[in-house]
Amino acid sequence: MSSSPLSATMKHYTYFRSSAAFRTRIALNLKGLKPEQVFVHLRKGEQGTEGYRAFNPQGLIPALVHYGRAIGQSLAIIEYLDEIVPEPPLLPADPLGRAYARQLAYIVACEIHPLGNMRVQNYLRDPLGHSDAELLAWSRHWIGLGLLAIETLVSGAAQTGRFCHGDQPTLADICLIPQMGNARRAELDLTPYPNLLRIEQAAFELSAFTDAMPKNQPDAE
Amino acid sequence: MSSSPLSATMKHYTYFRSSAAFRTRIALNLKGLKPEQVFVHLRKGEQGTEGYRAFNPQGLIPALVHYGRAIGQSLAIIEYLDEIVPEPPLLPADPLGRAYARQLAYIVACEIHPLGNMRVQNYLRDPLGHSDAELLAWSRHWIGLGLLAIETLVSGAAQTGRFCHGDQPTLADICLIPQMGNARRAELDLTPYPNLLRIEQAAFELSAFTDAMPKNQPDAE
Repeated sequence: MSSSPLSATMKHYTYFRSSAAFRTRIALNLKGLKPEQVFVHLRKGEQGTEGYRAFNPQGLIPALVHYGRAIGQSLAIIEYLDEIVPEPPLLPADPLGRAYARQLAYIVACEIHPLGNMRVQNYLRDPLGHSDAELLAWSRHWIGLGLLAIETLVSGAAQTGRFCHGDQPTLADICLIPQMGNARRAELDLTPYPNLLRIEQAAFELSAFTDAMPKNQPDAE
Repeated sequence: MSSSPLSATMKHYTYFRSSAAFRTRIALNLKGLKPEQVFVHLRKGEQGTEGYRAFNPQGLIPALVHYGRAIGQSLAIIEYLDEIVPEPPLLPADPLGRAYARQLAYIVACEIHPLGNMRVQNYLRDPLGHSDAELLAWSRHWIGLGLLAIETLVSGAAQTGRFCHGDQPTLADICLIPQMGNARRAELDLTPYPNLLRIEQAAFELSAFTDAMPKNQPDAE
């Protein structure tokens, strides 16, 4: 896909290992947008610098700067991209379908991901004094609960297709796929989630998903 | 406001103390919708019953059932209400404004709230063995970080008005106001957040917000 002129006005702040940035990379790829990538090294703490916090006070990745305005929070960025570049749509056309896709996305974004991110893991280590094994068990617990809810919904829903909703990827898949990688890193047994494994396989048949993978980023280590 | 005919086709599953249900109650009030309220007692574990999980497998509150379809996740419900009842809008009209309001909302919904909810507190108690004092410190830490990011954004943004974006409440305020109550419960000093206190005061001049408060619910204890 060729770069859209819109991309020329955008900067995307990313880190290869961030699963929130993995989401925004998928969305940018699906929309055929190729903004300038600015690599912010999370483990070196570059997100905490004054320069970065000046436009993204949370000091989190990703951020998108467009027309000089900064947007933080991956889902705000993705909804924005879907509004300014309507094709292909990242949400179903009907309001109940949209609500369902958002519900699945928020199970990941509001119930799983926040409990596993780096700053929470750091706090569990210090001051709370937990071991790597306890951290892994913590991650597995929350990922397992969330994925089970998604598996249950998807396995029972008439609207399930190749993807979480129908045969085209939506916001739900954009959130789910990076989380599946995190589940493996937390050594979660994925056999109780056959529908999610099947959807993951469908996603990785699309270059929008494979090109967005952490290992395929220019800043990958 | 009179009950809309739309409300007759809706059921809202709520619990007075749930701050996610506080959000959906505000949104329903702003839209003038008065669906049947079904009270699910979280502390008695009613959200874990088979009957409830049959349509909301996460076993979380709130849920909205409309035309026989269930929607879980408060923000999915609120975006849905905003799509089916456009007035008054809960998001700004311009895409960058919408992205900004969503960013603020997600700072609450994806970065603060998930770390303080009941099931996470329960896990920190058992198996992790933390005391009430450690739980309070945990809550204060994450609420303080998130509110500071919102205060910083709001204090520097041209679009700030009586509310987080302009002079009408948006999704951002709908998420912020319940979180302010949680901040007080966690004994967080709120003086570093003068803009948020001012916005809270503006919100509580509207019956949509006061009527949605936990203490004003029929199931309040």
